[in-house]
Amino acid sequence: MPRSDGRSPHALRKISIETPFFRHAEGSAAIRMGNTWVACAASLETRLPFWMRGQRSGWVTAEYGLLPRSVPERAARNRVSGRNFEIQRLVGRSLRAITDLDLLGERQIIIDCDVFEADGGTRTASVTAAYVALHQVCRHLLEKGEIRKFPIKDQLAAISVGLINGEPVLDLDHAEDSAADVDFNVVMTGSGHFVEVQGTAEGRPYTRQELNKMLSLAASGIRKVLKAQARVLPWILSPEVKDGGE
Amino acid sequence: MPRSDGRSPHALRKISIETPFFRHAEGSAAIRMGNTWVACAASLETRLPFWMRGQRSGWVTAEYGLLPRSVPERAARNRVSGRNFEIQRLVGRSLRAITDLDLLGERQIIIDCDVFEADGGTRTASVTAAYVALHQVCRHLLEKGEIRKFPIKDQLAAISVGLINGEPVLDLDHAEDSAADVDFNVVMTGSGHFVEVQGTAEGRPYTRQELNKMLSLAASGIRKVLKAQARVLPWILSPEVKDGGE
Amino acid sequence: MPRSDGRSPHALRKISIETPFFRHAEGSAAIRMGNTWVACAASLETRLPFWMRGQRSGWVTAEYGLLPRSVPERAARNRVSGRNFEIQRLVGRSLRAITDLDLLGERQIIIDCDVFEADGGTRTASVTAAYVALHQVCRHLLEKGEIRKFPIKDQLAAISVGLINGEPVLDLDHAEDSAADVDFNVVMTGSGHFVEVQGTAEGRPYTRQELNKMLSLAASGIRKVLKAQARVLPWILSPEVKDGGE
Amino acid sequence: MPRSDGRSPHALRKISIETPFFRHAEGSAAIRMGNTWVACAASLETRLPFWMRGQRSGWVTAEYGLLPRSVPERAARNRVSGRNFEIQRLVGRSLRAITDLDLLGERQIIIDCDVFEADGGTRTASVTAAYVALHQVCRHLLEKGEIRKFPIKDQLAAISVGLINGEPVLDLDHAEDSAADVDFNVVMTGSGHFVEVQGTAEGRPYTRQELNKMLSLAASGIRKVLKAQARVLPWILSPEVKDGGE
Amino acid sequence: MPRSDGRSPHALRKISIETPFFRHAEGSAAIRMGNTWVACAASLETRLPFWMRGQRSGWVTAEYGLLPRSVPERAARNRVSGRNFEIQRLVGRSLRAITDLDLLGERQIIIDCDVFEADGGTRTASVTAAYVALHQVCRHLLEKGEIRKFPIKDQLAAISVGLINGEPVLDLDHAEDSAADVDFNVVMTGSGHFVEVQGTAEGRPYTRQELNKMLSLAASGIRKVLKAQARVLPWILSPEVKDGGE
Amino acid sequence: MPRSDGRSPHALRKISIETPFFRHAEGSAAIRMGNTWVACAASLETRLPFWMRGQRSGWVTAEYGLLPRSVPERAARNRVSGRNFEIQRLVGRSLRAITDLDLLGERQIIIDCDVFEADGGTRTASVTAAYVALHQVCRHLLEKGEIRKFPIKDQLAAISVGLINGEPVLDLDHAEDSAADVDFNVVMTGSGHFVEVQGTAEGRPYTRQELNKMLSLAASGIRKVLKAQARVLPWILSPEVKDGGE
Repeated sequence: MPRSDGRSPHALRKISIETPFFRHAEGSAAIRMGNTWVACAASLETRLPFWMRGQRSGWVTAEYGLLPRSVPERAARNRVSGRNFEIQRLVGRSLRAITDLDLLGERQIIIDCDVFEADGGTRTASVTAAYVALHQVCRHLLEKGEIRKFPIKDQLAAISVGLINGEPVLDLDHAEDSAADVDFNVVMTGSGHFVEVQGTAEGRPYTRQELNKMLSLAASGIRKVLKAQARVLPWILSPEVKDGGE
Repeated sequence: MPRSDGRSPHALRKISIETPFFRHAEGSAAIRMGNTWVACAASLETRLPFWMRGQRSGWVTAEYGLLPRSVPERAARNRVSGRNFEIQRLVGRSLRAITDLDLLGERQIIIDCDVFEADGGTRTASVTAAYVALHQVCRHLLEKGEIRKFPIKDQLAAISVGLINGEPVLDLDHAEDSAADVDFNVVMTGSGHFVEVQGTAEGRPYTRQELNKMLSLAASGIRKVLKAQARVLPWILSPEVKDGGE
Repeated sequence: MPRSDGRSPHALRKISIETPFFRHAEGSAAIRMGNTWVACAASLETRLPFWMRGQRSGWVTAEYGLLPRSVPERAARNRVSGRNFEIQRLVGRSLRAITDLDLLGERQIIIDCDVFEADGGTRTASVTAAYVALHQVCRHLLEKGEIRKFPIKDQLAAISVGLINGEPVLDLDHAEDSAADVDFNVVMTGSGHFVEVQGTAEGRPYTRQELNKMLSLAASGIRKVLKAQARVLPWILSPEVKDGGE
Repeated sequence: MPRSDGRSPHALRKISIETPFFRHAEGSAAIRMGNTWVACAASLETRLPFWMRGQRSGWVTAEYGLLPRSVPERAARNRVSGRNFEIQRLVGRSLRAITDLDLLGERQIIIDCDVFEADGGTRTASVTAAYVALHQVCRHLLEKGEIRKFPIKDQLAAISVGLINGEPVLDLDHAEDSAADVDFNVVMTGSGHFVEVQGTAEGRPYTRQELNKMLSLAASGIRKVLKAQARVLPWILSPEVKDGGE
Repeated sequence: MPRSDGRSPHALRKISIETPFFRHAEGSAAIRMGNTWVACAASLETRLPFWMRGQRSGWVTAEYGLLPRSVPERAARNRVSGRNFEIQRLVGRSLRAITDLDLLGERQIIIDCDVFEADGGTRTASVTAAYVALHQVCRHLLEKGEIRKFPIKDQLAAISVGLINGEPVLDLDHAEDSAADVDFNVVMTGSGHFVEVQGTAEGRPYTRQELNKMLSLAASGIRKVLKAQARVLPWILSPEVKDGGE
Repeated sequence: MPRSDGRSPHALRKISIETPFFRHAEGSAAIRMGNTWVACAASLETRLPFWMRGQRSGWVTAEYGLLPRSVPERAARNRVSGRNFEIQRLVGRSLRAITDLDLLGERQIIIDCDVFEADGGTRTASVTAAYVALHQVCRHLLEKGEIRKFPIKDQLAAISVGLINGEPVLDLDHAEDSAADVDFNVVMTGSGHFVEVQGTAEGRPYTRQELNKMLSLAASGIRKVLKAQARVLPWILSPEVKDGGE
């Protein structure tokens, strides 16, 4: 099956990450993957959610929204949407999995992921850019001496993969996503471990063998996304060495 | 690691399904898995959501809620919660994956999943009981001649599995869920295919090998859940034969 | 007028009370009166509503909700409904009338009344079961030595009564309720006093004589409900003696 | 017990009714009972609530609100309050009990009761003034020939009564209401029948004998309120005769 | 162009101010300008909004609402409306411009402006009456010795002016407002300075010359409104002298 | 008084307009004025608001929002804010003043103004960019032959001006806005007429002479903004001629 933009089934869309992106934010990044465009702003707050207070530990969370015309038909502003809740929970959970919350101290970092242009894969793009924004906040905390050790334990990136006409396809755009029988979102670390695997049969249930193929394809795609992140970060997991994400 | 109730790591909790459960509902079932207790009511409506109208096709969706004292600390009534949204989307999506919506005609079936007692695994218990309630509505439609063919294409059940101290453990209760490093929810069909795989690293990222072990354990657990469903259904996928779920 | 279930106009429906009902709640009871089925969970909280703080006195309140398919046509989840507010205010007020709030100390007890099946009389059934749940919380407080004296001053139960074709009828089911000209809800104590009398002309205004007949019938019905409560309580108003409710 | 304004226990406060009150409303009246001051506006709408449509019958309903400084401590604007719901349901129900909804035709009349000054008895004052506003709308409908027969079947008024130190007291102001052991709200017709009886034990449960005394006192008070209404209405139940309310 | 009530283009409608108006409020006034009727209640609170706390300074704010039948077609109760927000922000801002918030100390004054009857100019009538209510609260604070100096620095009043058929017209009623090409709302002080100028082209953009004519007409109208205020205030800006507003 | 960026009091900040900006929108533009950055998306809808239907006329409206980190301290997502309402009403009103709604036919154009970076003047920047987005939608309608005549009657732009230390200053940034005694927002047409004049005394009331100076300065600034718009539009008010905005 030829893809609309001529990519091979195993190729990513063109990826670019701009950081910093928002002047006022403590950390920020905007990512473009093909026509998908998401901006993430990290806010450092000294107020924890009330159920976290007094535990000498920090918190990382995320919010996700769509600009009204990020989509073909105008989306109502401020709609309470189950899909948004699901995505922001995924982003927050993924970031916490690679963060040492104790090292953060009693601080909260909120990552706002706002979609400027949606063309498939906004949730995985959000995870990838949110990591860059989080990295920037944590660097500043370290540089200012507010924390003594870098709290990010591993690099983090995400990609989508699907099954179209029985074939695994990487990094689906919106049209491909609508045509796919199965839709997987995979979040992995720089050291090659899984943080989230979410695979949904949209059109038909899938076999164990198909699942395996999709995970392998996702893993190869995530390695490329990790490299794209590495290009915009001064260092990955330790300020002494400019280390890569693999 | 011994489990609190003495089960082996590969054993389900005691499972029982009561159907019908609600007198007024067109379909209903209540499930108990250990101390987890969820009741599902299926409502047959002739009104489709507005974006589905005029397509000669039906819709299946779900809502999920907690009674205030289904949990150790009273939960505020009617709270808008991202977790609830996430679960009801999972249940609805899973049911649609095994339903032929065209055969349903312009009808909507809403499955309300209400948790009476929460002790881990309420989302997978909801999927399992919702299938039984959906089955009942569809049987009635068929018996009354309102549809000509049974619209359910495959049996459906779900289970959770986790990684505790590096070992895969089946059907986690709340205490185990809190202690687990990884939390998987798996939804599968009677024919052994996957409908949903959701694996989250709560404590630490997991390897591909660990993922494989957890999926195998989940599949074996789901076979037992399918049998428990089969015991309360007059037939599974065709009224002529009392077929099993395997 | 013969009643649908063959009862005499002065007979209660079959009544049964199950207590405790919810594992996590500090007190709980479920009541069935015919097909009406309501579960009450009592939550003990150390946080008072802000306007009660610092007064060395406690508070008892109630919330009331319908499961979506407790009724023939699915009720939207979480709807703000004047009827619900009215009922939960009635339940809370009635419980406070027989509770010594000073003896409770700075504690709040919230009784959640959730209707599983509605067939008339859910508000009076809620009062009756809520009393049993409240009794259980207070017993625990006494047994654990957290309060020095039992704060419940009198037993409490409720019943509905109506006027159908000019005749007083006890404990109306939903069909009778819809046919009644007048609808009375009466809450009384074990010692035979009134706590709430609410009589509404649905079909036609009623005379003083009719009011008197209805109150007498309600009083006789409540005596039977008090006995049903007494059967599931270890003692009514004092731990030394297993006293009755009359 | 002497009353703060020197009234006898069986006396009403000074009552005055001004009608019409709102220029834009199809019917309106403002009532003062002592310092309690409530304005009612009746709106005639050709749109019925959706569940009433196509039944060739009408609907009467009410809404109730407090101006922020109708009370000693500023009340938040637009607060969703169980008390408000309870009161507006009482007013609507009472008006419907004396209205022939079929004669109204497919019309809705909404009575907005807004409290300018609260000093006890706002709900009974609302019923009394709402009746006057409803009467005005119905007169206009009759005069314009839109309905062929006056749809109001009986006059309607309301009063509160309470038990203070064991003695029945009529028409309680706010201070008396707070001191009362029992609080009764009674709605009656011009022909002396009951429409609503609501008696609540605030301080202690009450006996049947006390209930009887309170109802008698309420009935005598309502006769005076009916007269006050009659003074501002051109006729009560038939345009030919200027009949009284007794 | 003759006006519906025969006024000249430069004449105000009949204006009357009643103060105090609400018994419970710390300050209050009701204003009638023709058929427009607005009541303002000033509430003195010791709680500041959280972002003002600890600054040894006070705050003045306003809220604005319409009674459901202040308008020809019933307005839904409690509707969130951009117009209401806009008006209450204008009223609050205008009052703060002539108040020395430091002299107020850590107090908040909330002015509730409720429209009983709307016939054009409710926002300017609200400013004018709100000033009178604010004046009353501040007088009481001064008389009780709670503040040492009168915190109101200048008198404040407002008027609307418009352009109808190219001619400036003062104090528009609702029909004129709908017909006007341009709608100006002007708030000025007793010493003749501007606090707010808001001019909107409803029908066609306007020239600088037209703007100048409208401002001159507004200034002459405001002088008359200031006099009407002065008649109901014991003194304007200093208790020693009964000074005027010009 | 020297300005933070060295501008003269009569100079604009650096202005740039990018159009189109959103791929999915029927019209769009993003504007930067110094560090203020606002993106506008115009949506063409065939559904009118219900109160406009059947009038053979169109509607233009606007919505305004802040991204959470467009501001120094994170703003809660989806907050209902009076300021937002005020701004979106201003933008919508201004656009309607230069649009022939009858020529639009039964269509609605919604302009979403989203602030990416706020540094003063976001409301005037919104008006300026919204005009460009509206222009683009209307061009497309004309080019596709859906309307027969260009419905925009005049060019439209806006600027802020203020009084700092008694001196008029053009195009205030956030720091200047906070320091200003008076804040004016002015919207004007290409032909030099006023559409909106809003002048607020933040620090002290202002004289007529000061008002005049500020309006003159605003008019000179708007001429420059109109030129910046003209540079990105293929033609201003007629497709035949590439006309300017003056």
